[in-house]
Amino acid sequence: KINSERLWNTLHETCEWGAEHRYGENPTDTGMARLTLNDDDARVRRWFAAEVQKLGCSLSVDQMGNMFARQAGRLNSAAPMIAMGSHLDTQPRGGRYDGILGIMAALEILRTMKESGFKTNYDVGVVNWTNEEGARFPKSMCSSGVWAGAIPIQKAWDLRDIHDPSVTLRSELERHGYLGDIACSSDPTTGYPLGAHFELHIEQGPILPGNNRSIGVVQGAQGYRWLTMTVHGKDAHTGTTPFSARQDPLLASSRMIAASHDIAKRYDALASTGIIRVPSNASTNTVSSQVTFTLDIRHPQDSVVHAVQDECLKAFEVIASQDGKGVSFDWTLDTDSPAVQFDDNCVASIQAAADQLVGREKSMLMTSGAGHDTVYTSKHCPSAMIFVPCRDGVSHHPTEYCSPQDCALGTQALLEAVVHYDQF
Amino acid sequence: KINSERLWNTLHETCEWGAEHRYGENPTDTGMARLTLNDDDARVRRWFAAEVQKLGCSLSVDQMGNMFARQAGRLNSAAPMIAMGSHLDTQPRGGRYDGILGIMAALEILRTMKESGFKTNYDVGVVNWTNEEGARFPKSMCSSGVWAGAIPIQKAWDLRDIHDPSVTLRSELERHGYLGDIACSSDPTTGYPLGAHFELHIEQGPILPGNNRSIGVVQGAQGYRWLTMTVHGKDAHTGTTPFSARQDPLLASSRMIAASHDIAKRYDALASTGIIRVPSNASTNTVSSQVTFTLDIRHPQDSVVHAVQDECLKAFEVIASQDGKGVSFDWTLDTDSPAVQFDDNCVASIQAAADQLVGREKSMLMTSGAGHDTVYTSKHCPSAMIFVPCRDGVSHHPTEYCSPQDCALGTQALLEAVVHYDQF
Ligand SMILES: NC(=O)NCCC(=O)O
Ligand SMILES: NC(=O)NCCC(=O)O
Repeated sequence: KINSERLWNTLHETCEWGAEHRYGENPTDTGMARLTLNDDDARVRRWFAAEVQKLGCSLSVDQMGNMFARQAGRLNSAAPMIAMGSHLDTQPRGGRYDGILGIMAALEILRTMKESGFKTNYDVGVVNWTNEEGARFPKSMCSSGVWAGAIPIQKAWDLRDIHDPSVTLRSELERHGYLGDIACSSDPTTGYPLGAHFELHIEQGPILPGNNRSIGVVQGAQGYRWLTMTVHGKDAHTGTTPFSARQDPLLASSRMIAASHDIAKRYDALASTGIIRVPSNASTNTVSSQVTFTLDIRHPQDSVVHAVQDECLKAFEVIASQDGKGVSFDWTLDTDSPAVQFDDNCVASIQAAADQLVGREKSMLMTSGAGHDTVYTSKHCPSAMIFVPCRDGVSHHPTEYCSPQDCALGTQALLEAVVHYDQF
Repeated sequence: KINSERLWNTLHETCEWGAEHRYGENPTDTGMARLTLNDDDARVRRWFAAEVQKLGCSLSVDQMGNMFARQAGRLNSAAPMIAMGSHLDTQPRGGRYDGILGIMAALEILRTMKESGFKTNYDVGVVNWTNEEGARFPKSMCSSGVWAGAIPIQKAWDLRDIHDPSVTLRSELERHGYLGDIACSSDPTTGYPLGAHFELHIEQGPILPGNNRSIGVVQGAQGYRWLTMTVHGKDAHTGTTPFSARQDPLLASSRMIAASHDIAKRYDALASTGIIRVPSNASTNTVSSQVTFTLDIRHPQDSVVHAVQDECLKAFEVIASQDGKGVSFDWTLDTDSPAVQFDDNCVASIQAAADQLVGREKSMLMTSGAGHDTVYTSKHCPSAMIFVPCRDGVSHHPTEYCSPQDCALGTQALLEAVVHYDQF
């Protein structure tokens, strides 16, 4: 049985590195701004390295700075380890649980095993994946993506700090001594293959709290596509140009955003626009010449994601010809993340753990709405995830909160699932 | 008869100060970036001062840097002068005619009168109004507004450069020596009253070219109101947050922008959004917490402007409660410019000039869609405007163009109208 207090204290102690955005009076009433490979991220990495080595783990670092801590199993088998992975980096206005809980839970499990003299059959360990958030170096699930062969390493190394383009992800790896010599790959000869990958994560949504469940058995992740639309019109004076003479890209974009929502709703899918931009010299009395906006389409079935995209683009064509002299538009596909089914055996191990800990009334099968490192690991090893509720579903926000009870429950479930899978 | 070639050459020679945004190969194929009181604006002001003094005019500068050039009339009357006014400042991506034509036409008229030994009965002159565009110091028709008592001078002086807040309009007036000592006012004892104000301006819209007319007899300006809407929602992950749990201010803003257009259309009015902004840390996979957008409502009747505003706000209330958990919004009124009727006698003088030069088939009565300095002067002296067509109605754009023939025709009409009014 894991030590709930030690877990909670360790998590919040290490959040001293990167604490920001105070919102309340308790010492832990802050969010986090521990951006990938900033000085605080380097500090928590050094702490993590020291802690796992204290436990007798070996530590390997690959060329993306992914950290693999490994605890030998009873059988001294050469098989790849069963990994518990997540990430220690955060959003610029992030919270104390997203990613961090997954690593702290894994560490607590190794501590519990060591303390109680328990040994798994096969090697088990922890992975700290570099730059999951993609907030400083803009590519999310970056280094699990390189490990899985989905992102070329050079592209990842060349990512620039969004605020200081003179700094690259590689230059920061070098500065902190985290450019390891193992290939970032699942290849058994050059890289670091894994036997399985389990990830405990906060849900980041309202489904568990809304259904009064405390454990989500995550059997896959929905597919998503990110598009950037650029709508072209023509600058015109808002006072002197009749509607009939206009080519108004902001009016067209507005109709497109509303239409994409309505279409997604009909499919029970999601379509969301997070960013819209007009040129910096836009003014109140000038119809803009150009507007760009993002479109994020999601559904557990890829076919539905595609259908929503197709129907949106068709609707956008109609809208583009609708007002005044019409507008034109083009688009790029920036991210294509197909739906993923996690491994049946991993899911079964998590379900067994949940059944034992809380029963079927307090757990539920679910599909992850967001991408996680496990989406990439699942391409090269059996993988699955455990979700625990976070307050009001709020995440990527300083007030993100997961109760000590839920942190502990998720950690215990992770322990049981790994032991179950190790025995299987 | 004015000298069309001299007018054209003078206009383009002085556009060397501030020429930007080349779009073609001819020397004059550029736009302008002569922002209020930048070094180029100071240069063209010094040139203008020298030219009018060469013509024997007296020159007065008021506390807003408005320049009043005055040519004595035959009667040596103490009556306030009949002014031909406009502005020499431009938009950052502006053209060579907006404002500039009005000043160059007035100068050409003084040159023509001097050359031919013609004298008006009463004093006539030229006014160069400071910061009509409001592009660098954000208040349009700024110094005619102060002159008319509609804008407090301290507020105008305190306007900050939109890119460098350490610079104010007043500090730039001082730097260039254009903080005059006459009050910026129509008060006859402390300020600079005018007997009448005529302004030649490009139409900046498609009505004259669309109707194949070459002179617009402008009998007033439509009313307009500028609102800034702020829509408040809540940051949420686009992948994990069902529509039902969202408060999405960008979706609501999109529906509001589309609704305002549709409402204005029903009233035969205009409603336009030029600017929309999401927070700078917006991301593709986060529902924004807040969105602001501008709303510019116009119609020749103030009652219709108000009705459109009221109906928009009512529709916005409905939209705010519509999707997910709803959003809230608030708004500010940034500009309220009621509709203006110009002076009958000034309009009649312009109509007489147009009748004589092109006849009724080639001229038309019209209402200005945009605000101009004349909107403010009309509050304190008889005023009216002449419009000439610009190519495709394009303005506030480097490719803005008014043909040499139309520049000359407008200038001749301005001359005839002023002489007509002087005789009246
Ligand atoms: N967990 C998370 O925010 N992943 C980033 C990719 C996504 O938007 O799903
Ligand atoms: N002419 C002009 O652009 N005036 C500024 C105020 C307006 O938008 O009407």
